[in-house]
Amino acid sequence: MSKSMKVSNLVINRLPMYHRFLTELKSNGAHKISSSALADTMHLTASQIRQDLNCFGGFGQQGYGYNIDFLLESIGRILGLDQNKNTILIGAGRLGSTLISHISFSELGFNLTGIYDNDKNIIGNKVNDIEIQDIKNLSIPQNNQNVDVAILCIPKQACHETVTFLIQNGIKTFWNFTHYDLQINFLKDCITVENVHLSDSLMKLSYKKTNNDN
Amino acid sequence: MSKSMKVSNLVINRLPMYHRFLTELKSNGAHKISSSALADTMHLTASQIRQDLNCFGGFGQQGYGYNIDFLLESIGRILGLDQNKNTILIGAGRLGSTLISHISFSELGFNLTGIYDNDKNIIGNKVNDIEIQDIKNLSIPQNNQNVDVAILCIPKQACHETVTFLIQNGIKTFWNFTHYDLQINFLKDCITVENVHLSDSLMKLSYKKTNNDN
Repeated sequence: MSKSMKVSNLVINRLPMYHRFLTELKSNGAHKISSSALADTMHLTASQIRQDLNCFGGFGQQGYGYNIDFLLESIGRILGLDQNKNTILIGAGRLGSTLISHISFSELGFNLTGIYDNDKNIIGNKVNDIEIQDIKNLSIPQNNQNVDVAILCIPKQACHETVTFLIQNGIKTFWNFTHYDLQINFLKDCITVENVHLSDSLMKLSYKKTNNDN
Repeated sequence: MSKSMKVSNLVINRLPMYHRFLTELKSNGAHKISSSALADTMHLTASQIRQDLNCFGGFGQQGYGYNIDFLLESIGRILGLDQNKNTILIGAGRLGSTLISHISFSELGFNLTGIYDNDKNIIGNKVNDIEIQDIKNLSIPQNNQNVDVAILCIPKQACHETVTFLIQNGIKTFWNFTHYDLQINFLKDCITVENVHLSDSLMKLSYKKTNNDN
């Protein structure tokens, strides 16, 4: 996709949902689907789906519908899931190690190459067959593999130093589970961040509940 | 707040961030802050902050700034954090029990009253001093306490039956960690949902990385 093409965040936010639904349709043995049937399944309108997919060139044929394999592969490519992303976990405490066990990273193109922590008590242990290494070893190239993405599961107070160190080591993409706002503390244009602020999500639920109840 | 007052989602999404920053300022011993200093801290503009807070009536005084205690308490009230919300966890596997240990539910007004699972191997175990009960016991009133919120950490295929059962038992608010789209399968107006779709978040990171790199 060209850099000049600006797709709205609302469309981008829906792409993973398309990917999920199409993956399920495929695993149920379906081969093609009309935009109206896909719309029914996802509770969107057919026109909305056509508009969304037209942002990327459109993938259907009038009167035929969408080829599920082709659409799924195309959306996967738009999402960059077909590109290998060497990924490390920083912080192998309970949350970090649960994520590693819970999520199918490789299916989304994330190749977990290392797990790091500074806790001497857990360094050397294994999570999903990967040995937890001392964070101090991170600057040493690991089999000449670059690291593309770091998953941050460390305490907030350790973030500034750690992220500075990671950026110095060429890592610019972060899946951030900490309460540290990377976009505020580092140059926004130099890093790519997706935050999962669990407490913020819980506060939003509280807001919705309070205002639905009133 | 009156039902007729419609606050934009962008403002609502920023409220937890205000709450986080003000909590930190308070814990650092600060008592008051100007909108421009708060703006600097949060990398927003002072005008943006005034506009956001004016949605709820405004809490500052021209030339004086914001009283941090008062603003924090007010935002907490807007978010409904001052209201007790009896909460149960459905699914005490690795993700569910990690969440229970990781998040300070009570600080946000969520009072964890029960943990339920259908796995005979873990029923009777304790997570954070709360015994995991058989999901079948959920319909029996627990000390006459109502349940307001359910946290869903169960496999997708168990969701429809479980959520139907929970709704029948009067639970309408869900913090949803499953890949099941509640809003699609139940009447949107009857339930309150906040989703944490971890794989969707990872796909969004992949999209951002791919499109920043190109």
